[in-house]
Amino acid sequence: MTHVFAPPARAAVADPPERPRKGESTRAAIVDAALGIARREGLEGLTIGLLAEALGMSKSGVFAHFGSREDLQLAVLREYAARFIDDVLRPAVELERGLPRLQAMLENWLRLLARELEQGCLMIAGASEYDDRPGVLRDAMVAIVMGWKDELLRAIEAAKAAGHLRAGVESRQLVFEIYGLMLALHQDARLLRSSDGVKRARAGLARLIDAGRSRRAGRGAAADRSVAKSPGGRAQRARVRRLQSS
Amino acid sequence: MTHVFAPPARAAVADPPERPRKGESTRAAIVDAALGIARREGLEGLTIGLLAEALGMSKSGVFAHFGSREDLQLAVLREYAARFIDDVLRPAVELERGLPRLQAMLENWLRLLARELEQGCLMIAGASEYDDRPGVLRDAMVAIVMGWKDELLRAIEAAKAAGHLRAGVESRQLVFEIYGLMLALHQDARLLRSSDGVKRARAGLARLIDAGRSRRAGRGAAADRSVAKSPGGRAQRARVRRLQSS
Repeated sequence: MTHVFAPPARAAVADPPERPRKGESTRAAIVDAALGIARREGLEGLTIGLLAEALGMSKSGVFAHFGSREDLQLAVLREYAARFIDDVLRPAVELERGLPRLQAMLENWLRLLARELEQGCLMIAGASEYDDRPGVLRDAMVAIVMGWKDELLRAIEAAKAAGHLRAGVESRQLVFEIYGLMLALHQDARLLRSSDGVKRARAGLARLIDAGRSRRAGRGAAADRSVAKSPGGRAQRARVRRLQSS
Repeated sequence: MTHVFAPPARAAVADPPERPRKGESTRAAIVDAALGIARREGLEGLTIGLLAEALGMSKSGVFAHFGSREDLQLAVLREYAARFIDDVLRPAVELERGLPRLQAMLENWLRLLARELEQGCLMIAGASEYDDRPGVLRDAMVAIVMGWKDELLRAIEAAKAAGHLRAGVESRQLVFEIYGLMLALHQDARLLRSSDGVKRARAGLARLIDAGRSRRAGRGAAADRSVAKSPGGRAQRARVRRLQSS
């Protein structure tokens, strides 16, 4: 079990021993283009050939930055996870611990997913693509999903500690059900072309939170501001900064 | 929108004009073997070559029964849907309308999914496989999922009509959330190899039902037996018989 929402399998995508600045920015541009292709074609549809064509580079030029197609795919997953942290987790960590932070994480996630629906979410589609293919890509996916579930779990625990959610709320069960709503949204939008999934997922999330809300917190009650400065809050912000700068 | 949980795209898998009895049973044996392969390899991994090898037949022998690989894949989807009706819907329809029937549908579905987890559910995996591939297979998947959602919707509406669920329960929202729990179970088991998904999904389903239960029905209260003989109940049983014999 991974305890940090960390980009996976770093060793497998180690930087070349001596890397000039130019190489760094070229590498970032390659990963950016590769992420775009992977969003459209799936991670398994990402090939060095497609990527070289999109970038107007030679295949050997791409290979100079990534030893193999698998290394490239791993770099794309790392980049996806880093952007997910930027979009979903980082802004939420600026809010006070407890329900405000948890609700921001859920809303940011929902909005990101809503933006991704047209092409499909790389992680949700990838989970199905790789669930029966053992290897480093599957391991990386598992690490990302487990890491994110762990962040959700921490946020729920903090909301319980702050008295915003009832102590009796079963945290892992809540994470399971939150994930279910996001998966239902993805399938409804992708397979059924349903347009009301975002509304339904948001309503489901609100119902889940309301069912766990402690009476003393009440609906929409202002939370105790002091928890924003709790050691736990500082620890989570520091963890995100570490992830950001790594 | 499909209003019957009907095997999809029948015209596309029409029988040959003159079909001897022997051909019928051979065809059924081929579809059975093909379903087994599709469960392991995914519908897209099902090839005439693999199937011929599994059956000890020639490829042309298989082609004599199915004009194309796509026809074979469609026949597999039809067979999957027919077995789903047998396992999940038919036994539930024997129960009285309202909550007893709805709960049996959910429990039967959960048990079927639990049995399928090792290889993956053909429909859930297939939804992700085909969501961005327009064509008859995608259309068939959509028809099956929409048809099943429609059956769930009818069962929820019947439970409301019988006074077992509150009239204020938003039926489509409930179907969305039920589906989410099943998808979360599938991802947890398939990607994360988590063993507690069935327990979590069952707990989530119970919570959803309990939240919608009308006060007058109460927890575990005996439902009104007369509804079992309601015209609606007969209609649903007749619909299932029609689907079975078709």
